[in-house]
Amino acid sequence: MHTDAAVLVELNQPLRLLPLDLPDLKPGQVLVDVAYSGVCHSQLHEVRGRRGPDRFLPHTLGHEGSGTVTAVGPGVAKVRPGDRVVLTWIKGEGADVPSVSYESVLGRVNSGALSTFMRRTVTCENRLVPVPAEMPLREAALLGCALPTGAGVVTNTANPPAGSALVVFGAGGIGLSAVMAARLHGVGTLIAVDVVEQKLADARRFGATHTVNACHCDPVAAILELTGGRGADFAVEAAGRRETMEAAFRCVRDKGGLCVLAGNLPHGEQISLNPFDLIRGKRIVGTWGGDTVSDRDLPRYARLFLDGKLPLTDLISREYPLSGVNAALDDLEGGRVARALIDMGA
Amino acid sequence: MHTDAAVLVELNQPLRLLPLDLPDLKPGQVLVDVAYSGVCHSQLHEVRGRRGPDRFLPHTLGHEGSGTVTAVGPGVAKVRPGDRVVLTWIKGEGADVPSVSYESVLGRVNSGALSTFMRRTVTCENRLVPVPAEMPLREAALLGCALPTGAGVVTNTANPPAGSALVVFGAGGIGLSAVMAARLHGVGTLIAVDVVEQKLADARRFGATHTVNACHCDPVAAILELTGGRGADFAVEAAGRRETMEAAFRCVRDKGGLCVLAGNLPHGEQISLNPFDLIRGKRIVGTWGGDTVSDRDLPRYARLFLDGKLPLTDLISREYPLSGVNAALDDLEGGRVARALIDMGA
Ligand SMILES: [Zn+2]
Ligand SMILES: [Zn+2]
Repeated sequence: MHTDAAVLVELNQPLRLLPLDLPDLKPGQVLVDVAYSGVCHSQLHEVRGRRGPDRFLPHTLGHEGSGTVTAVGPGVAKVRPGDRVVLTWIKGEGADVPSVSYESVLGRVNSGALSTFMRRTVTCENRLVPVPAEMPLREAALLGCALPTGAGVVTNTANPPAGSALVVFGAGGIGLSAVMAARLHGVGTLIAVDVVEQKLADARRFGATHTVNACHCDPVAAILELTGGRGADFAVEAAGRRETMEAAFRCVRDKGGLCVLAGNLPHGEQISLNPFDLIRGKRIVGTWGGDTVSDRDLPRYARLFLDGKLPLTDLISREYPLSGVNAALDDLEGGRVARALIDMGA
Repeated sequence: MHTDAAVLVELNQPLRLLPLDLPDLKPGQVLVDVAYSGVCHSQLHEVRGRRGPDRFLPHTLGHEGSGTVTAVGPGVAKVRPGDRVVLTWIKGEGADVPSVSYESVLGRVNSGALSTFMRRTVTCENRLVPVPAEMPLREAALLGCALPTGAGVVTNTANPPAGSALVVFGAGGIGLSAVMAARLHGVGTLIAVDVVEQKLADARRFGATHTVNACHCDPVAAILELTGGRGADFAVEAAGRRETMEAAFRCVRDKGGLCVLAGNLPHGEQISLNPFDLIRGKRIVGTWGGDTVSDRDLPRYARLFLDGKLPLTDLISREYPLSGVNAALDDLEGGRVARALIDMGA
């Protein structure tokens, strides 16, 4: 048995579509027919070599998706063939089988515990979460990374009380997910900051009460004005840029304002902050996938979607076939899509 | 009635000793015969103009001391004449009278709510805390700033469990106070970092289990080695330097290690940190005077001293008369004293 996969052979080169041989399943492993894969900035950083030297070339990519279980290895209890699952890099319950490799015409191709830029994938129990049979696989793919990160940063990390003031920097997939979750929390002043008018319009559609285009003004000054000079109670950084991380920290209020970093920076980049702001009680924390507990949170998000409370469908900007994965990465880099999906045509 | 006071007339010039006229006490104000004043880096930053432009020149200085109440203004209930008090910039219970001014040959001399570089001072209820009659005023002066900041950072902010690993950067008055408090908490690996061998010897005397001279090695590497590669559970930055703040953050462990900034930087200086360290779960917070609740904490420290558990006497490096205040500032700047006291000769 084999599968088609998009493989990173060399940094800064387009991914190559290659057939890979599927290995036998080891204990704890699961074979999944991938339906959809998300494409996010993590893969962009990897492909563009922004994570530094890559010891694992050639390797597969993609860490969020959805699909249907087709076979399970020995000892797997969490799912069985036919189950609909979210594929997610966020570790949950179950066996952890940290790496897989596939044979190919190029020799061995490495994979982590999960890769989703491929039609069939070998992963393990703790990287998948079953969802209800009525959950559409298209929207389920968003539950693997963007949505739990953005919504988790709000719900798990910040937990804003109703009526508070919350700012989201970066209205991409993670930022818009944060906006959706903040609206469910009843945030009173919900500000989105971006440099692309279309994304700000998206943010308003998802519930932002105010938007700030950081091309046209100093976002920190704008946020101070919108919060009566106090600063925001919470800021979520989802743009993954140095300047926005620094602005997000500066725009929260003294005495307890909380800045949460949900984005990543390229390897080795630093942010600069005034320690006196820490002494004045501004807080800054990082988060690993929005502090998501995947087996608890993902089924909850699926139910919220099925109840019409999470407009996940509107998050999907554009779909590409697996052969269009390089175009999807280029569009993401160019800011032309918030959330791109690869449709495996299953 | 008048008092002698050390007055900052011009930035970067020696303080001038001047007689000041004492004003009548307003409601909530208290007149104190100062016995001892501490000298700390805050005054050094002020005198050397490192806080930026100074709108209040000429003004008095000093924000920690001890003395005896000699008169109280209308409505004062917290103390009465004859009470021994700690004078502290850390606000406690009682009336807040934010500013005082004194007439002099130079015209009006400004003071904040508390100044202690003077023989008699007009302050207000919430800047003093009564201590037991048996508490010596010499050691009581340390309870106004260094001790509550350093001990509070450990006890209130970090609260390390017994057996944990804690690092103190900077073995001056605040750092040594942190070491003392960490020993009372039963910290297992208690590391002090400084560049002056004498201060490291002091730290060992106060309970440090290991010391690192940052002149001779990379302190972060040394701390990783001393903690078996894990990093420290807690780091306290009490050196007030950019490099040590950055090192203190880097040396705490992933997944919950806490760096607490107790020191200050000169106005406008920034620190640089890797946001990925935040995402990996390293934490950094500032503290305002060690989160001290002065009316609760200062009497507790006085009792610990009287019980022989806080070796405050050993913290005092050298005493100066009021006329020696400029020498005290120079010695503090040159790293020749950890904690200087001004003895008013009362
Ligand atoms: Zn992702
Ligand atoms: Zn002080």
